[in-house]
Amino acid sequence: MPDTLIKVDLTKSAYENDKVHNRWHPDIPMVEWVNPGDDFIIETYDWTGGFIKNNDSADDVRDIDLSIVHFLSGPIGVKGAEPGDLLVVDLLDVGPLKESLWGFNGFFSKQNGGGFLTDHFPLAQKSIWDIKGLYTSSRHVPGVNFAGLIHPGLIGCLPDPKLLATWNERETALIATNPTRVPGLANPPFAPTAHAGQAKGDVKAKIGAEGARTVPPREHGGNCDIKDLSRGSKIYFPVYVPGGGLSMGDLHFSQGDGEITFCGAIEMAGWLHIKVDIIKDGVAKYGIKNPIFKPSPITPNYRDYLIFEGISVDEAGKQHYLDVHIAYRQACLNAIEYLKKFGYSGAQAYSILGTAPVQGHISGVVDVPNACATLWLPTEIFDFDVMPSSAGPIKHITGDIQMPISPDK
Amino acid sequence: MPDTLIKVDLTKSAYENDKVHNRWHPDIPMVEWVNPGDDFIIETYDWTGGFIKNNDSADDVRDIDLSIVHFLSGPIGVKGAEPGDLLVVDLLDVGPLKESLWGFNGFFSKQNGGGFLTDHFPLAQKSIWDIKGLYTSSRHVPGVNFAGLIHPGLIGCLPDPKLLATWNERETALIATNPTRVPGLANPPFAPTAHAGQAKGDVKAKIGAEGARTVPPREHGGNCDIKDLSRGSKIYFPVYVPGGGLSMGDLHFSQGDGEITFCGAIEMAGWLHIKVDIIKDGVAKYGIKNPIFKPSPITPNYRDYLIFEGISVDEAGKQHYLDVHIAYRQACLNAIEYLKKFGYSGAQAYSILGTAPVQGHISGVVDVPNACATLWLPTEIFDFDVMPSSAGPIKHITGDIQMPISPDK
Amino acid sequence: MPDTLIKVDLTKSAYENDKVHNRWHPDIPMVEWVNPGDDFIIETYDWTGGFIKNNDSADDVRDIDLSIVHFLSGPIGVKGAEPGDLLVVDLLDVGPLKESLWGFNGFFSKQNGGGFLTDHFPLAQKSIWDIKGLYTSSRHVPGVNFAGLIHPGLIGCLPDPKLLATWNERETALIATNPTRVPGLANPPFAPTAHAGQAKGDVKAKIGAEGARTVPPREHGGNCDIKDLSRGSKIYFPVYVPGGGLSMGDLHFSQGDGEITFCGAIEMAGWLHIKVDIIKDGVAKYGIKNPIFKPSPITPNYRDYLIFEGISVDEAGKQHYLDVHIAYRQACLNAIEYLKKFGYSGAQAYSILGTAPVQGHISGVVDVPNACATLWLPTEIFDFDVMPSSAGPIKHITGDIQMPISPDK
Amino acid sequence: MPDTLIKVDLTKSAYENDKVHNRWHPDIPMVEWVNPGDDFIIETYDWTGGFIKNNDSADDVRDIDLSIVHFLSGPIGVKGAEPGDLLVVDLLDVGPLKESLWGFNGFFSKQNGGGFLTDHFPLAQKSIWDIKGLYTSSRHVPGVNFAGLIHPGLIGCLPDPKLLATWNERETALIATNPTRVPGLANPPFAPTAHAGQAKGDVKAKIGAEGARTVPPREHGGNCDIKDLSRGSKIYFPVYVPGGGLSMGDLHFSQGDGEITFCGAIEMAGWLHIKVDIIKDGVAKYGIKNPIFKPSPITPNYRDYLIFEGISVDEAGKQHYLDVHIAYRQACLNAIEYLKKFGYSGAQAYSILGTAPVQGHISGVVDVPNACATLWLPTEIFDFDVMPSSAGPIKHITGDIQMPISPDK
Repeated sequence: MPDTLIKVDLTKSAYENDKVHNRWHPDIPMVEWVNPGDDFIIETYDWTGGFIKNNDSADDVRDIDLSIVHFLSGPIGVKGAEPGDLLVVDLLDVGPLKESLWGFNGFFSKQNGGGFLTDHFPLAQKSIWDIKGLYTSSRHVPGVNFAGLIHPGLIGCLPDPKLLATWNERETALIATNPTRVPGLANPPFAPTAHAGQAKGDVKAKIGAEGARTVPPREHGGNCDIKDLSRGSKIYFPVYVPGGGLSMGDLHFSQGDGEITFCGAIEMAGWLHIKVDIIKDGVAKYGIKNPIFKPSPITPNYRDYLIFEGISVDEAGKQHYLDVHIAYRQACLNAIEYLKKFGYSGAQAYSILGTAPVQGHISGVVDVPNACATLWLPTEIFDFDVMPSSAGPIKHITGDIQMPISPDK
Repeated sequence: MPDTLIKVDLTKSAYENDKVHNRWHPDIPMVEWVNPGDDFIIETYDWTGGFIKNNDSADDVRDIDLSIVHFLSGPIGVKGAEPGDLLVVDLLDVGPLKESLWGFNGFFSKQNGGGFLTDHFPLAQKSIWDIKGLYTSSRHVPGVNFAGLIHPGLIGCLPDPKLLATWNERETALIATNPTRVPGLANPPFAPTAHAGQAKGDVKAKIGAEGARTVPPREHGGNCDIKDLSRGSKIYFPVYVPGGGLSMGDLHFSQGDGEITFCGAIEMAGWLHIKVDIIKDGVAKYGIKNPIFKPSPITPNYRDYLIFEGISVDEAGKQHYLDVHIAYRQACLNAIEYLKKFGYSGAQAYSILGTAPVQGHISGVVDVPNACATLWLPTEIFDFDVMPSSAGPIKHITGDIQMPISPDK
Repeated sequence: MPDTLIKVDLTKSAYENDKVHNRWHPDIPMVEWVNPGDDFIIETYDWTGGFIKNNDSADDVRDIDLSIVHFLSGPIGVKGAEPGDLLVVDLLDVGPLKESLWGFNGFFSKQNGGGFLTDHFPLAQKSIWDIKGLYTSSRHVPGVNFAGLIHPGLIGCLPDPKLLATWNERETALIATNPTRVPGLANPPFAPTAHAGQAKGDVKAKIGAEGARTVPPREHGGNCDIKDLSRGSKIYFPVYVPGGGLSMGDLHFSQGDGEITFCGAIEMAGWLHIKVDIIKDGVAKYGIKNPIFKPSPITPNYRDYLIFEGISVDEAGKQHYLDVHIAYRQACLNAIEYLKKFGYSGAQAYSILGTAPVQGHISGVVDVPNACATLWLPTEIFDFDVMPSSAGPIKHITGDIQMPISPDK
Repeated sequence: MPDTLIKVDLTKSAYENDKVHNRWHPDIPMVEWVNPGDDFIIETYDWTGGFIKNNDSADDVRDIDLSIVHFLSGPIGVKGAEPGDLLVVDLLDVGPLKESLWGFNGFFSKQNGGGFLTDHFPLAQKSIWDIKGLYTSSRHVPGVNFAGLIHPGLIGCLPDPKLLATWNERETALIATNPTRVPGLANPPFAPTAHAGQAKGDVKAKIGAEGARTVPPREHGGNCDIKDLSRGSKIYFPVYVPGGGLSMGDLHFSQGDGEITFCGAIEMAGWLHIKVDIIKDGVAKYGIKNPIFKPSPITPNYRDYLIFEGISVDEAGKQHYLDVHIAYRQACLNAIEYLKKFGYSGAQAYSILGTAPVQGHISGVVDVPNACATLWLPTEIFDFDVMPSSAGPIKHITGDIQMPISPDK
């Protein structure tokens, strides 16, 4: 049985665990060293470190201080890994902690984080999903039950000082274009809530002052929220610092493409069984900028989809130029409108798109001025028939179950 | 054997065929009427009406007048279809014309249409793809051979006057924001090259003056270029005018998500065997804005992918806000850079991404400020192993075969 | 466009076509010679040469003289192919003839051929299946519509004299164990109905006297009736005579594993687009006895199955020893009994198992004394829900449509 | 977290665990009672109760007393389940015990159990497979690594007295046809090694005297060894006694169709997370004789197969009549011969066929006199290319690693 290199205790604050950190910085000390070829277990908190509870109130979603996220386990040093190498990571398996067989999905208030459809769902809402073996269902979203595509939302190696500086510079420049926007355009370093792992003293202070926030995906991977980076997949990460410094967290039991609900997929605490190896000088040899990966041979075989199209004309009818973001938003809104005909509330439909193994495809990006995006809804996840017919639609969902909502204070 | 309602003669100009048109307008006369439940055959020109030739020069790609596209077969009236209904179209089969077993892919000059990567590939280039049964390969792009996901790039019903006016207004407004941009932000109505089908006199003139260009996808579907709208799929189209007025064309033997090369997928002349039916009042009953569809049970089962990530930081290092268009462009550029390590020219790699059944996923759209997009490259289409390894990469492609290129005049 | 090397005229007897034959013998003259790397079209009769008609009587199924089958197109010689080579055949595409978009399925009378369940269905019955693009449905079997897995039931190279002698000897020995059995244990050479292709005179007589009947699969492949040898697949055949002598026929629009109805799958006239190549000395190099193949990347993606088990205890309750034949028969009977609860007649259910892309798995062959076989019924082929539930089953099939039946004369 | 109703202690004899039994009999007392809708965990021994060890000697495989198998966990009573109901079992998840992350595969000596190819591999051999997350590989069989299709080989409800009597009668009759055969045709009740669970005294003696051995699959399911009955699947079992009495064991990390090596698949100790429900009177309503099931949406997506054919002519050249057992044996032998060309020993190749997710299809069962069976070998499980080519085959396997073998004493 493989060693568990990092353990988490869900009854204690993630800040007390010194094998955890919540910023990206080259000076965060390695907490363990392994050899190429080793396999081992890493436990992780959920991305909020336990702030969101298994209950029927969305107050925690409304009130969270988002500067605390994400609590990552690591960094792990791999002996012999040098800048320019590729770190090969096999996600041999990923799962929930036995003492915590549930996950959450929610929408942040537009005043505190927002989300993809925050103009349509501006208030904090939450749904809780129970995990039963390979399947999940929710007491807040009736009529769906599906097999999860379990994956880490966030995984990557430590940046070197130059890469970190690049990140901070370009994001600061973006924020400067509209510094008072709500929600903010990006998140700058923020020392008060930084968790620098085993760093102490000046190093700790430096990490707090300079450490990149963990929200966006970047060149090293990081918070990619790619649902297909799932257990069984093999990932090739660029190495920037000696030893690599692999950290991970933000486990999802299941997520739709785009993680449109932002808070988030089906978020859970859990564990990863991983194996590491090195391809020397792989970055230059293969021309790698961002991580590449090979998906798992074991994934839900959903095959029956109902597919919604969206184009880059926004809700107000304004024409945008090849904007895939807007096109995908329209496809999502189209799907939500459709599901409402079967009795779902808009919030429940939105939750389904955020949690189920929905696909989002970039279908056309050249036919000026409209981009076309498609949202693929697996029909087998429903307890009832959701295909169109001459006789339908039938209101299978009666509306007596609703998702918790918490008005802004 | 089903009737062929529309035939095309590839030896004659598409302008001579009065069952063809190249604009969207409610007054284009129906060329045939069918009953719900009927199935029949429709032949189509390639989208350029035969302008691009099966040869080794890219001059035609450079010189094409893009105001002539797309040559569509139709419109077909369906008896009993009324505004607000859903027109259910079964794509029973789609294929190339027997006398024309080839297709083309190309990049337009940046001066004349451009494309997704036009800043990287600013000159006209072309590749020719031979069709052999279910498979295709190119004399200009060695080392790949794959099964096509055959589909119409363009299919939809005629707009009513109100919808048409909406299109023209919003696109004109966009053009007005930068009217001299090259390539243009959108394409306004343009009478000189309009083909109004069987319309004559004043009606024909009106269609020329007002008819929407066929390039963008819009609410009715149209030029969606969705590779998965393939033979065997079932599509539900909103009906706007009595009879529906279904038109189609722009057949593709195969295409990658995004149709990033713009000119285009593997473009071909061909035929569709379709069946039509009606769901009365389906638009309101199901809350439909854009078409929805169910994919085919018969598609290439490619399973082994190498997946490239891209984030919304552009080639100059500038940070953009959740811009999926830029993120997907980075994923594409990352894949091109990778394939070059195996010996491909950039243009050949770009062609592969435009033609093979590549998937483009919207992987993350909420982790400010970076969107994350992924490009899924099916590895089985290559004659050789393209996975990373400690020993690789091996230059299997020797560079003695190159794609035709034509400098701007 | 590839050349059509062999054409068939459905208005004339297959015996008049000298590029067709219905026996296996080394002396059947090659009708065409091709080069390695060539691709070309071959047309074929249905296996009975047009004896079974598109009508509503099973008399033709009852009355057929089975010594006439199978009418094969070929043999094709491949230049350079020598005994011991592997002939590599790419099935680039396969389809029905345009003038004949239908197929038949039937059960022979137990007095004339029988079938897998002949003790349960002893009389001749027939169903006609219409082909509409990728799909098929039957006016005699309501409630099902599915995409076909189109394939040649029969394809292989000519045997050499030694192999032919082996076949005749071992099959004659089997017949001798029970020479009067009905149906017969095997079929010996039979000159009166032999079609020797272009052979004349003494050679023709020799072929009639010695030529192996085409019914069984043998070392060279032949009548394997493997549904997965479908269009898009690649097959490696052993070569026994100079040039190989590839012949083919017995096209199926769709078939279930086992072709349990015997007459047959959905039998049709059609065409194959194939490409040939050679692996020199491949038989010894790869230790090949029977053909091997790689399946197509393009196949129906049916994923939802209801699976029936059967064990090697026969209908009378008698225990057999690890007999997969009996186990599969029980699984088939179990599935038929189940489908009857939804309103199908036994004959209709049997037809569905013979025609749809049903899988038959050898699930256990070592747990003495019971073999276990499973029959996988794709549930998506039905217009209604066939899964078990607390509320079900519902009789969706009303019984007003029945299959033609013809009592023995 | 669901309750664990049955625990196993691998350091103690399975005979000491009174929630375990190794015979089928209606009088075996229920060890736990649950309600419809409950989900819970059941732990199981490996089928031999720990007799086979993780070492490099096949002596244990040679010496095992096969009358001790299979050690099953249960029976579980479901409240309200009555004879004639269907017991619906969701296999929510299945996995290995954490303290025992390995499994074994072996061939029994022909003198003690034998196997599908016992005439070709008459001596005891063994291979040990390490389980790393979703994957497995063996120190005795180099060059393969694959994702398992984890499943219980054995699961079913208790028979009633009538069904038990039927079993004993028909199997005794078979044995009587050749009582001295080695290996035996079937296994009669055998009291000395019976484990009757919590039964005591006379009841225990009765169970020993009458209890059906667990080796064969029967009407209730039992030892079906169906690889697709895997985690995530849903099974419908006939109920014969009040409460049902569900027992299970013989967990496999992976198995090929047929479980041809008999000892066995990749055999392991483990746990199942299951949920139970009832369909009242389902046996009659759906015409159920054997269990039926719906496969899991989560299975290895292996798509690239090399397929071997076999026909019912045996190794000596003798013709058999539509014998699928012999046909599948030939397909297996053909695959073994092929793999030997890449350097594998015959025993290693045989092990691969017994352990990897190989498919065995009943391809043709009506073309007298030859049945045709196919063996589908997933090519992606190999570290190297196993497809035929003009250049190949290459001996990737050097032969320095061999499987343990133990001559008969």
